[in-house]
Amino acid sequence: MIRATEDQEFYELTSPTLLPKASGFLWNEKMMIHMNCRGYAVAQFMQPEPAKYSHAPNLEAKTFMQPEQPYYAHHPGRFVFVKDEESGEIFSAPYEPVRVPADSYTFAAGKSSIHWKVECHGVRVEMSLRLTKDEPMELWRVKVTNLSSAARRLSVYPYFTVGYMSWMNQSGEYNADLQAIICSSITPYQKYKDYYTIKNFADKTYLLAERKPAAWEVNHEAFEGEGGIMRPSALASEELAGGDARYETPVCALQYRVRLAPGEAEDYRFIFGPAHDEQEIEAIRSRMFGPSGTEGADGFALAETEYDAYVREGRGCIEIATPDPGLDNFVNHWLPRQMYYHGQTNRLSTDPQTRNYLQDNMGMSYIKPQTARNSFLVALAQQKASGAMPDGIILHPDAELKYINQVPHTDHCVWLPVCLSTYLDETGDYALLDEKVPFADDEREASVYEHIDLAMRWLIGDRDERGLNYINQGDWCDPMNMVGYKGKGVSGWLTIATAYAFKVWADICQASGRESAAREYRLEAERTNEAANVHFWDGEWYARGITDDNVRFGIRTDTEGRIFVNPQGWSLLSGAADAEKQAKLIRAVEEQLESPYGVEKLAPSFTAMREDVGRVTQKHPGSAENGAVYNHAAAFYIYALYAVGEADNAYRLLRKMLPGPSMEDIVQRGQLPVFIPNYYRGAYRQFPRTAGRSSHLFNTGTVPWVYRCLIDGLFGVQGTAEGIRIQPQLPSGWNEARLKREFRGAVLQIEIRREPGATETEVYVDGALAPDGLIRDVRPKAEYRVQVVIPAARKEIL
Amino acid sequence: MIRATEDQEFYELTSPTLLPKASGFLWNEKMMIHMNCRGYAVAQFMQPEPAKYSHAPNLEAKTFMQPEQPYYAHHPGRFVFVKDEESGEIFSAPYEPVRVPADSYTFAAGKSSIHWKVECHGVRVEMSLRLTKDEPMELWRVKVTNLSSAARRLSVYPYFTVGYMSWMNQSGEYNADLQAIICSSITPYQKYKDYYTIKNFADKTYLLAERKPAAWEVNHEAFEGEGGIMRPSALASEELAGGDARYETPVCALQYRVRLAPGEAEDYRFIFGPAHDEQEIEAIRSRMFGPSGTEGADGFALAETEYDAYVREGRGCIEIATPDPGLDNFVNHWLPRQMYYHGQTNRLSTDPQTRNYLQDNMGMSYIKPQTARNSFLVALAQQKASGAMPDGIILHPDAELKYINQVPHTDHCVWLPVCLSTYLDETGDYALLDEKVPFADDEREASVYEHIDLAMRWLIGDRDERGLNYINQGDWCDPMNMVGYKGKGVSGWLTIATAYAFKVWADICQASGRESAAREYRLEAERTNEAANVHFWDGEWYARGITDDNVRFGIRTDTEGRIFVNPQGWSLLSGAADAEKQAKLIRAVEEQLESPYGVEKLAPSFTAMREDVGRVTQKHPGSAENGAVYNHAAAFYIYALYAVGEADNAYRLLRKMLPGPSMEDIVQRGQLPVFIPNYYRGAYRQFPRTAGRSSHLFNTGTVPWVYRCLIDGLFGVQGTAEGIRIQPQLPSGWNEARLKREFRGAVLQIEIRREPGATETEVYVDGALAPDGLIRDVRPKAEYRVQVVIPAARKEIL
Repeated sequence: MIRATEDQEFYELTSPTLLPKASGFLWNEKMMIHMNCRGYAVAQFMQPEPAKYSHAPNLEAKTFMQPEQPYYAHHPGRFVFVKDEESGEIFSAPYEPVRVPADSYTFAAGKSSIHWKVECHGVRVEMSLRLTKDEPMELWRVKVTNLSSAARRLSVYPYFTVGYMSWMNQSGEYNADLQAIICSSITPYQKYKDYYTIKNFADKTYLLAERKPAAWEVNHEAFEGEGGIMRPSALASEELAGGDARYETPVCALQYRVRLAPGEAEDYRFIFGPAHDEQEIEAIRSRMFGPSGTEGADGFALAETEYDAYVREGRGCIEIATPDPGLDNFVNHWLPRQMYYHGQTNRLSTDPQTRNYLQDNMGMSYIKPQTARNSFLVALAQQKASGAMPDGIILHPDAELKYINQVPHTDHCVWLPVCLSTYLDETGDYALLDEKVPFADDEREASVYEHIDLAMRWLIGDRDERGLNYINQGDWCDPMNMVGYKGKGVSGWLTIATAYAFKVWADICQASGRESAAREYRLEAERTNEAANVHFWDGEWYARGITDDNVRFGIRTDTEGRIFVNPQGWSLLSGAADAEKQAKLIRAVEEQLESPYGVEKLAPSFTAMREDVGRVTQKHPGSAENGAVYNHAAAFYIYALYAVGEADNAYRLLRKMLPGPSMEDIVQRGQLPVFIPNYYRGAYRQFPRTAGRSSHLFNTGTVPWVYRCLIDGLFGVQGTAEGIRIQPQLPSGWNEARLKREFRGAVLQIEIRREPGATETEVYVDGALAPDGLIRDVRPKAEYRVQVVIPAARKEIL
Repeated sequence: MIRATEDQEFYELTSPTLLPKASGFLWNEKMMIHMNCRGYAVAQFMQPEPAKYSHAPNLEAKTFMQPEQPYYAHHPGRFVFVKDEESGEIFSAPYEPVRVPADSYTFAAGKSSIHWKVECHGVRVEMSLRLTKDEPMELWRVKVTNLSSAARRLSVYPYFTVGYMSWMNQSGEYNADLQAIICSSITPYQKYKDYYTIKNFADKTYLLAERKPAAWEVNHEAFEGEGGIMRPSALASEELAGGDARYETPVCALQYRVRLAPGEAEDYRFIFGPAHDEQEIEAIRSRMFGPSGTEGADGFALAETEYDAYVREGRGCIEIATPDPGLDNFVNHWLPRQMYYHGQTNRLSTDPQTRNYLQDNMGMSYIKPQTARNSFLVALAQQKASGAMPDGIILHPDAELKYINQVPHTDHCVWLPVCLSTYLDETGDYALLDEKVPFADDEREASVYEHIDLAMRWLIGDRDERGLNYINQGDWCDPMNMVGYKGKGVSGWLTIATAYAFKVWADICQASGRESAAREYRLEAERTNEAANVHFWDGEWYARGITDDNVRFGIRTDTEGRIFVNPQGWSLLSGAADAEKQAKLIRAVEEQLESPYGVEKLAPSFTAMREDVGRVTQKHPGSAENGAVYNHAAAFYIYALYAVGEADNAYRLLRKMLPGPSMEDIVQRGQLPVFIPNYYRGAYRQFPRTAGRSSHLFNTGTVPWVYRCLIDGLFGVQGTAEGIRIQPQLPSGWNEARLKREFRGAVLQIEIRREPGATETEVYVDGALAPDGLIRDVRPKAEYRVQVVIPAARKEIL
């Protein structure tokens, strides 16, 4: 069974085998932990680059976060073994590594905590995990209850993996004074200059126990013995042997021996994380397990409460009640949470890709606009005086551009007006445009307006003689790296996106009183759309680009990569596509790209290298960018459908982005609906068995675009320079919806009702008709009651 | 039990749990495989950099070969599951992953093959592995015999792990035409230029079966199911489900169903390895399983025979029969094999460290002197016109200096005369000195003599005003990287080693008729020794160096790193130490560095960073360079003891380098005596529990020095410019020894006998006394009978 709890604070799963990769995740600005329902964990903390304190059993590659994470027997995890001291029977909670089927099992992925309740052999084990609001540490509670009718003698073994810490130096031992297992290591390095970086690393991993254990084991090999990971030999002894690890793989294993009367329970609390030294661990012990100054709570409990509050700050600006409870739950609870995660952590990167950074902060406009504002200024201060934006935004003085940020992409400027517009819509803070910001390569300061103007001019300049934008080694699609690396290839999507950026920027200019600039950019948008129509329209849809060798691709005659979604959606927004083209390309997307799991990024997936297109064609068919349901692109397409009034079409695709509602669908995706993954496996027509599977990667630009689909599209509650325009686009199957919209400090209680007699949308504010649906001069702290009447069968009217 | 087989071709182990990390290794110039007795494997092939075709279950770091390799449940390996179709009982050979204790178990690590014989549940499984002589592929035989008195219905499942091939693209499927599981992947890359490298990679992994299987499984998750790695669920079904892997972890699992009468057996053969494409695999199938042209043998059997012959070429130049059978076995069989491995593979590196490359080829002088000759020329062609040698020798046009070779070290020039002298001793080929060789940074050519002369002058120039050699970021000890990086610190070892290099070079000059140069270098050696005695002698031993801040270290007053072995041994050779100093430092080494497992590199091991010494002080105490029994350094010390006539002392330490003879000793080391590892864990006085453990890493400069200990020291059969000098230094406990010495095409049958009445060593060649023990004008193809009489209690006479 899979279900949302009644208070909608958790998603629950009642079997560890139904969705073996189901997971929840928690974060603060110092760390992230992705907990699998079976007990496996992927955790990272920042120092300042992402680092681990619970490692794989071998030397792992340092890399960006990988999709479709493989698990294996010795994968890092957090487990509790339970042994009946009389019968010798053992099981482990949550499920790994012993894999004894439980009598009852619940995994609950919550917003600020993750819980398990496992009943097996007449014993209940409850486990919970929280973080603190600002430190890299895990707060664990374990409760063991005797469910049987007789007294039981049990051994309870918390078992937290540490893994292969370092080839240079690793060890571990039990510190009786601190009641902690402390594992030490030194991060390997070879060049002496790196010493000054690694010397300050938190290279210790500790498990701190509130209660004194009866015994412990720190040596992984000794713990496991010949019994193996599924039946560790150490559990056969009355007590763990108390070994240490000396350049051996360490583990944090404790043993508590307890006699429980029927119904009796025992509670334990633990802290697990990285540290610099014993002093730090000692300070944590005294702070967390000592009195907190708050009555009745110690530091541990207080930290839990504070963490709950910290996560709760990530509320969105709408609360909805619609005929679709799955949507309500996701939008009211999980979507803003995921958006907030992005805004707070920048994906645990010190050099987020520029487009990601801008879009993540676009989402933050709905939650903490001040953070978004500051971030836009940070990004613009890294712009070159030429107007060019860098590939990544450096967030830490020691950071450098890594991985894909070392490959030049040409689209970053586009995102400036596109993302800023949301911030302006939401806040009306046009004063931002006059803020002065420096350049990366020039001392002089310029206003935000001038910065973005330069960015737009950079886009105008970075074109060929046909007026088409160069792609260089990639645009939004990272691995389309060989279309234009020789300096000639152009991007269909980027050309169209540039037109859209001009249009958005023209609107911003207009709204901020810069009318001649607005006119100029509207003209530029038109010219760009014209060029796009001349060179990219392929008869039924837009081509994806033209290579260095002047070969158009993403067209009818291609057998693979025949159609790409991105140029289609953006042409709806840029105005390139007239009504006839709109109808054609919408049909083409539906016929060729839509699958039961959403809109694929391109189809058919490439199955062999196309050297004039590049790396995307070598990726696994249906994975990542090569034909996946790439939700970021799909969300943008949905947004574009709303922009042209395709409400039913848009809603159908939006709904496919969330797993469910059917159990089969959730199982095929393999993920609880607590986040939108960056992709679902695509290539539906080529590889149906695997299509729809979640990447399990929650870092994605998708979420703010889904939010914009709701705000600007479905519920039509988008801000404007003057106020807020109410213009819902409910799917034709809905007759009503209610929402609470927070906007510039005010609260709007909005009821939308479909009336068979109505011929057009009418908006009443506190009983009075608002012409054009526009509510002007929204007063902070005021509350408005808004009634919206929408006509029946809106689509037919169109 | 652990024993050498009667023919001494194998070392056998009869339990998988006694030495869980015991292993054998096989190689050719394209690959290396390190097979663990329990079925785990570490294999690499060259394309041109080391690559894998059987991966870890996660994204592994690319790195140099690691010591003390950790194993874990899903570690790559080669296994055979056997299921009784009636009872459903399963076990796996060799032992992992099921871990059923066998009724009988033998692991036999051989020179050109590795074998297992496992009896369990009334079934015998025999497995053998060979390579081919020149391709990256594994040749496996599996034989299954019914040992019970009733007919048996069995399922036999070869299970070869493939692991996580690539985050970019991975898949696998069964190819019925080829009877092969073929797993495909694309090596991940992000920069388009890297495409041109990876496009030619052999990114497929195949398991090719001679006999058609009844069923197969390619999907690792499907194979394992909820049963887990120790009890895969797929084995519960009558037949494997025949799945594929689509961006899922692949595995090569086959199923053979067989009915065996009592005593009946079934044979299988498989090929496992990397390939570029199906065509290549098809060609391998037809070549290996088709007729070979040799009567009665197919390609597979022929390849096995050829591989045996290929490995057999690696014979040494002595065969010994002494009172120590363990030594005989190791020296006659395993030592030259390990030396040959180094000479043939250059440690599977495209940029071996210069000192390693020179020493590995020093060893090759005893086996294939022509290879050594060519390699010296290759190295010298990469010398700069300044005389400086690079940190690594580039062996492939695409190679670059990696890892530690990016850190500047100052000792490389020292190794030129030291290593060359062995080649000259062995061949008398002084003509090599007149070969013309270019420079790395200069078109002009110079003779080998001039090259080495420049190297010696570079050493003279790279000194401070005291005449002490700068250490920069390291010398022979890689991680002593902060002693002199500011440009002032000097090395005690390197200064003394330079004196020794001058002395060796003076001898070469003398022998090649360059007498004035010989005089000059003798004088330089003397001057250098004097400086060393002034600045490094600490009263009882030599200091290790003086830091940038003019702090002497490796001295009495240091509490950690008080004494280092390298300056001591080399001072015996360079002549720095007079008789009194010799006696003192030999005693200091014995008291402070000698352990039951050999001589430690330094003591006490550092337990905390010493910033003015560097990284070595951060390594795990007792591991690698920080206080390990670093066999390379230990072998050199033993060599030096022979040089000053300390025969008993030298032999005692030499014998500690080989595990055994006691079972306790072998078990503590954890390794069969089929190779000398680069280190045994040290810090014996600080961490006795782990001291003595083998690193299990067989890449080491130790082996040619052990060979030189035997040739130049123990048996005293060293070549000279004129011939060969017979001057044995048997330990006082031995009264006789025999050896066959091959030398410049001749064979010397040597008998050494201790005679109570003799007062000095007398050498008789074919009955005639050879004055000074020197045999001149050795004739190729001639055989000499040499009688050597040595005095009793040689040590007392000294």
